[in-house]
Amino acid sequence: MTPVEPLDTTTAELLERFRDGKIPGLARAISVVEGERSGFQSLLHTVMAGGPQAKRVGVTGPPGAGKSSLVAAAATSYRERDERVGVVAVDPTSPYSGGALLGDRIRMNDIAMDPGIFIRSMATRGSLGGLATTTKEVVDLMDGFGFPRVLIETVGVGQTELEITAAADTVVVVLVPESGDAIQAMKAGLMEIADIFVVNKADRPGSARLVKELRQALHLRAGSALKDIPAHHGVDLGQAMKKERTTDAPATEPEGWSVPVLTTNALTNDGVDKLLRTIDEHRSWLEESGQLEVRRRDRAEGRIRDVVNRELMRIAWRRDEVVDLLREGVEEIAGGEETPYSVARRIVEVLLR
Amino acid sequence: MTPVEPLDTTTAELLERFRDGKIPGLARAISVVEGERSGFQSLLHTVMAGGPQAKRVGVTGPPGAGKSSLVAAAATSYRERDERVGVVAVDPTSPYSGGALLGDRIRMNDIAMDPGIFIRSMATRGSLGGLATTTKEVVDLMDGFGFPRVLIETVGVGQTELEITAAADTVVVVLVPESGDAIQAMKAGLMEIADIFVVNKADRPGSARLVKELRQALHLRAGSALKDIPAHHGVDLGQAMKKERTTDAPATEPEGWSVPVLTTNALTNDGVDKLLRTIDEHRSWLEESGQLEVRRRDRAEGRIRDVVNRELMRIAWRRDEVVDLLREGVEEIAGGEETPYSVARRIVEVLLR
Repeated sequence: MTPVEPLDTTTAELLERFRDGKIPGLARAISVVEGERSGFQSLLHTVMAGGPQAKRVGVTGPPGAGKSSLVAAAATSYRERDERVGVVAVDPTSPYSGGALLGDRIRMNDIAMDPGIFIRSMATRGSLGGLATTTKEVVDLMDGFGFPRVLIETVGVGQTELEITAAADTVVVVLVPESGDAIQAMKAGLMEIADIFVVNKADRPGSARLVKELRQALHLRAGSALKDIPAHHGVDLGQAMKKERTTDAPATEPEGWSVPVLTTNALTNDGVDKLLRTIDEHRSWLEESGQLEVRRRDRAEGRIRDVVNRELMRIAWRRDEVVDLLREGVEEIAGGEETPYSVARRIVEVLLR
Repeated sequence: MTPVEPLDTTTAELLERFRDGKIPGLARAISVVEGERSGFQSLLHTVMAGGPQAKRVGVTGPPGAGKSSLVAAAATSYRERDERVGVVAVDPTSPYSGGALLGDRIRMNDIAMDPGIFIRSMATRGSLGGLATTTKEVVDLMDGFGFPRVLIETVGVGQTELEITAAADTVVVVLVPESGDAIQAMKAGLMEIADIFVVNKADRPGSARLVKELRQALHLRAGSALKDIPAHHGVDLGQAMKKERTTDAPATEPEGWSVPVLTTNALTNDGVDKLLRTIDEHRSWLEESGQLEVRRRDRAEGRIRDVVNRELMRIAWRRDEVVDLLREGVEEIAGGEETPYSVARRIVEVLLR
């Protein structure tokens, strides 16, 4: 295997604790990766050498859909069966939804004293809406640490939830009647990423209607030429949907997985067992159809790109020559002699000459 | 000036129409930049050669604060005084807030038939939460086109609103009582970026309290050692605030600008004139204090970094050698021979050797 960088003593020691299954070793490894501290890449390289092993399930959806409660309910069920589980929760640290999140976290804390479960809340970085590379790397650490299941909870705002596919094998999209109708879900690209739809808080008014709409939309997508219409183009699918014969039969993806629409009530646990069974069914399908291999390859490719991009930037802005050109460039721009584009060109030429 | 790339005929023709002040020329230039089409960098280089001229005002805040209505009211006022104005609205294309945004946009459309105003709505890109480089470049195009004022509206979710400082000279943070209290605003880093606070929908209950809290928080920040506490560290500032003598006097920044807290009601136009006067006062202060120069230099530096990073990635992934290494790497990872880190290292070495 191509070496990444020599393992320093600290990283080697950390790896030993990590491999011994010591939770403080995992926590420390996560800190090293989050802080991109010295040795973090060799750490990840070593931990990932065996390839991914865990069943990775992403849970995404709009704020207020009850994702955290659902993840907590799922984690509790796994623990009742004595399965160890890791949870990575990407928290937007939004000041506006702070209260609601806190409520969910407290529920999470009920199970947080159990050594068979490890929960890591991560802040979204200022510069990123989607999943930071670091977040995906923390999922890898949990996998490499030996958790057979890793749950990844991400709050979807706009299109950021689409990036969950870059971290999870199975994507569960959680909606509630309040989060809008199936057309909105379609426009947002959620049809493309969902392996399983969940309508949570299913006791609320409008949930039966949302379930029906989602099934129709999935059926439409599976059975008609509309499948080829790219998402995010504001197509009036409602109009097209009316022309379709409506049925409640599940849609069938080309590869043979019918995206089911389930209902849950995370607070009363209703439907949670069924959801977990469906996740396992999706897992079996992934393995048998060869899709797991396809998804893992896509993920490996994406990760190579991420790591190369991060390294290019890191190395570039550390070079004295580049820093000098940057400083001079700012002065020249202020003096009206250059623009950021001409200065950037000079820097790129120095880097890639 | 360092050349960026030779101007092709299409770009040269486009530049001519742009310089003649033809709105279709501006619209076309924006499309070229948005699509990163051939020649877009020389276009921006040429347009920006004279440096920034426009007064750039960023308007940010949480969803539902009425930013669009406020921007529409401001734009209308500028037009009544015969000042031309450009508007760049960064729309999250969120399926969940679609309705509210649409309502705002309709109001915007009332003024959209006027040739002295140009409004451009931009989608946030999937991979970015904050302001994409492209968005900042569109602001530059509006500036270079000759709009003396450019308003930039961004929806803040989590910490993404902080990036508005990378595009605007003056940052207006819009809050409503429903968006939380001053402590939340402080934790979210809004105190650091706001040049002017606006409590919109000021007729609603809780607005007087929010105004008072914001003033206290600003005073505290200006007058005490707490200023040095980094944001986002979850410090209980409420506790600290209670110890401070509370006064309604505006806070004073080290540089001499007191961040005011204004109230508006965008729908009835209450307070909008006062806001526009305050924006002009801030402009005068920026110019006289030398802060405008400081901010423009920071922006130039940020832009150089953005453009270099974008170019590095663009050039890197176009090279045949790199694409081959990527493909081989994915196979090797699937076969357990390599990890994304060892493959990335090989690619980086090829690029920067």
